Amino acid sequence: MGYYKDLRDHVKALEANGKLVRIKRLINKDTELMPLVRWQFNGLAEEQRKAFLFENVVDVKGRRFEIPVLVGSHSSSKEMYALGMMCAPDKIMDKWTEAQLHPIEPRMVGDGPVHEEVHVGDKLLEHGGLEEFPVPISTPGFDNAPYFTCANWVTKDPETGTRNIGNYRAMIKSKTRTGIFCASHIQHLYVHWQKCKRMGKPLQAAIVMGSIPALGYASVTKFPYGVDEYAVVGGVAGEPIELVKCKTVDIEVPAAAEVVIEGELPTDAMEREAPFGEFTGYMGEKSLSPYFNVTCITHRRNPIYSAFLSQFTPSEASVMSCIGREATVLKFLRHDCGLPVLDVALHQSCGSWHYCVVKMKLGHPAEAWQALHAVAGQSPRQGKITIVVDDDIDARNPDSVNWALAWRMMPDRDIDIIRGRVAPMDYSAKPPGEPEHFNVTGSSALLINATRKWAYPPVSLPKKQFMERAKQIWEEQGLPKLTPHEPWYGYTLGYWTEEDEQEAELALQGEHFQTGEKYARERNRSR
Amino acid sequence: MGYYKDLRDHVKALEANGKLVRIKRLINKDTELMPLVRWQFNGLAEEQRKAFLFENVVDVKGRRFEIPVLVGSHSSSKEMYALGMMCAPDKIMDKWTEAQLHPIEPRMVGDGPVHEEVHVGDKLLEHGGLEEFPVPISTPGFDNAPYFTCANWVTKDPETGTRNIGNYRAMIKSKTRTGIFCASHIQHLYVHWQKCKRMGKPLQAAIVMGSIPALGYASVTKFPYGVDEYAVVGGVAGEPIELVKCKTVDIEVPAAAEVVIEGELPTDAMEREAPFGEFTGYMGEKSLSPYFNVTCITHRRNPIYSAFLSQFTPSEASVMSCIGREATVLKFLRHDCGLPVLDVALHQSCGSWHYCVVKMKLGHPAEAWQALHAVAGQSPRQGKITIVVDDDIDARNPDSVNWALAWRMMPDRDIDIIRGRVAPMDYSAKPPGEPEHFNVTGSSALLINATRKWAYPPVSLPKKQFMERAKQIWEEQGLPKLTPHEPWYGYTLGYWTEEDEQEAELALQGEHFQTGEKYARERNRSR
Repeated sequence: MGYYKDLRDHVKALEANGKLVRIKRLINKDTELMPLVRWQFNGLAEEQRKAFLFENVVDVKGRRFEIPVLVGSHSSSKEMYALGMMCAPDKIMDKWTEAQLHPIEPRMVGDGPVHEEVHVGDKLLEHGGLEEFPVPISTPGFDNAPYFTCANWVTKDPETGTRNIGNYRAMIKSKTRTGIFCASHIQHLYVHWQKCKRMGKPLQAAIVMGSIPALGYASVTKFPYGVDEYAVVGGVAGEPIELVKCKTVDIEVPAAAEVVIEGELPTDAMEREAPFGEFTGYMGEKSLSPYFNVTCITHRRNPIYSAFLSQFTPSEASVMSCIGREATVLKFLRHDCGLPVLDVALHQSCGSWHYCVVKMKLGHPAEAWQALHAVAGQSPRQGKITIVVDDDIDARNPDSVNWALAWRMMPDRDIDIIRGRVAPMDYSAKPPGEPEHFNVTGSSALLINATRKWAYPPVSLPKKQFMERAKQIWEEQGLPKLTPHEPWYGYTLGYWTEEDEQEAELALQGEHFQTGEKYARERNRSR
Repeated sequence: MGYYKDLRDHVKALEANGKLVRIKRLINKDTELMPLVRWQFNGLAEEQRKAFLFENVVDVKGRRFEIPVLVGSHSSSKEMYALGMMCAPDKIMDKWTEAQLHPIEPRMVGDGPVHEEVHVGDKLLEHGGLEEFPVPISTPGFDNAPYFTCANWVTKDPETGTRNIGNYRAMIKSKTRTGIFCASHIQHLYVHWQKCKRMGKPLQAAIVMGSIPALGYASVTKFPYGVDEYAVVGGVAGEPIELVKCKTVDIEVPAAAEVVIEGELPTDAMEREAPFGEFTGYMGEKSLSPYFNVTCITHRRNPIYSAFLSQFTPSEASVMSCIGREATVLKFLRHDCGLPVLDVALHQSCGSWHYCVVKMKLGHPAEAWQALHAVAGQSPRQGKITIVVDDDIDARNPDSVNWALAWRMMPDRDIDIIRGRVAPMDYSAKPPGEPEHFNVTGSSALLINATRKWAYPPVSLPKKQFMERAKQIWEEQGLPKLTPHEPWYGYTLGYWTEEDEQEAELALQGEHFQTGEKYARERNRSR
């Protein structure tokens, strides 16, 4: 079976797997839609989360939309992400690594469904321009407009022609104009914009909305500058992505996308943008950013409008960006630094950037610090708190990581603080409204080696056979259903002698008085 | 209604509240008993946990015991701790503070049920000495003997006569001899022992097992040296605790206790003790400690033997010591340091010692650091990682604390590392088997101020009314039952202007193009 050919294929798969909720009642896209989906992130276990398809949408002015809204389809849970990648949840990391190591170039085709309807020139506003689409307000009460949240921006480096695809929010400013939040040098679109500015010309762009899921995953994942996301997506799909030329700009877009918005970002001026609810858990503050003038709108017949649920984590966006980023960090540590890394967990509670746990089976003690510096060296932004843990720690469970911090880490020996980092939207670096240079040393980061530095005594739980036997009795007695969590039995960690083992064995024979007698015989004069 | 008059009263209350499981099948105390109860800590939600009464107990040699074993009665959950304190779960802290501020002295009585059976002198061994009691092996496969885990040791300062009650594990070494693990200067019994040693005499002691729950809670809680735990327990009970004199030592014990073991700790010699599974998550290593020679055993008719489930956290012992310690830290910070502290959480994942989160509503920014130093100043042992958070953070939820660390803390500004601490059983301080002076600077600690240093934008969630409305729709649509977790709606944190509010209001009227036009009018030349 090939990869999904378009969004509709993916929606069918979601429904077939019981991962789609169809809401047929009237829903207000501005006040009700996102809060409803938000509840599953603040009130359900991850495995219960689904995609929502709203089939009957109105806005605050009572206007009804023909176009349905799909939210949460990409990655409301890791299981749904795996469905989108067409692999088992535990194979996602491998699949990303393979796709990066073996990308497949996209293929140009002459025409595609995305051009079934074209609004351009005199007819740009024939269906209302951007008002044709039921764009929800993400954070009603705080957001200053509806925003595209699922906008995959395609631009090119004006010097090299290298393509970039990135997800950037877009404030709806008029029927033919949006904002974009990208005013930082660590964002590749902004690099393109600055080059165009120096060349005295606008930056052409196309916004792709509603495509195959891997494109969405790739657009929120940071690949090195110059990597063509279409080729990586092809690597995930196992076949070339089919592209068509845009109608008014020199950009290629997926032939089977639901909606494409073409246009230009002027480079001679900027506009205010935001507030918008961000993944940090706080409203993103107003700032000057580029803006986008629409030149053409194309879409399939009866298009589906897609949105990501973002804002406070966990959210669809946090699940998605978390997994993608973990995959790129893991690939980097394993393949580019040659480190024995077993797992990388970017905790969603911290915006999937700021709390990075690297799980390792150390070959040499120095590999712990090598990994800490490598995470810092891959990006100036990730891992404000980076922690290396041993292979028996669950890097994804904050209690397990804290257990490692408590008993395997000594602060004055195992911690370094590094400076000169960036922390976009981190209000602990500078107060909102203050200029970047408020904090001249940049943001800082905490690197922590929470691995065992020497042999430890065994983990203090009964040996496996006793826990297994007790579980049989538990079930035989009809006690409540167990959900075992790790560790559930004791294991050795290098410090355990023959004598210790013999004494434990004697105790299990009821012969512990022999040990007591031995201790009495060798009784020491007290110090 | 008065407080529980004895353990039997408490067991009735547990059963009446659906918090007792009676196990009538044959259970091997050495291989099956503790692993069975352990499962509820590694496989059930906290609110599902109960006490277990084993009515039909054998040992590995096939010996049957008349005496039943009660495990988990004190505090398998916070709810059960509250039941033992006779208050609501959210009043536990207040009740401890009141009891410390208003202790009630115990009352001596002539006789009591604990003396219904007395084994002393020639008859010390008439029921087998310590073998009369079905003492379970806590960590089968690693522990070197059965240990008393629920042993409340009563001793007196030989110079001042001040009493201390503390819970110390006791390895069963013979029919008339146990170990004790207390060889540290931060333990009050060891202070008594050292004074006796200097005076050239043994330390008298009585082990109390099976009393009112408040005595168990007090025995695992660190009160300042010299505080009489019986009086604090009286403060909890709201009435004096009735005590009787021991038969062979100058010690007072509760008249209604199930079992009392009297004896002496020689001070001219020590013995090896352990390994025993400890709360740190690792086996406690063998070391030299005092030992205890039994001179008399007294108990009620048909006594109940009580044990704590300890070892790896969470456990009954960790729930219990956690709550008691939190209460003493909270009382200290609030009453003795005058700080506006709302909550203190000693995370059980870290042994209820090493990870201390203090939740405050700061009056002045300096109070955050005052609190950090106060926690360090109250004890050289608690809070290896101590974090102050704001009043909107859930100090007990590691994800919420990590969210604060990620976005409200800047490492190079908000962290201090302090030295010269102690860390008993912390193998990150020194390898097991090495002497204390391996680490000459002592253990170190990490103090972190994770409060907001200035005004922040609002939390990025829809305003309350939209989340409430969405919840109605959620329920109307028959979607899965929600368990909301905090925060579930957005709130302001000081940085939010009139203009921001007006723009959000316009967006909710569908008039966000007005904002877009305003931004276009004031469009700046790009920098």
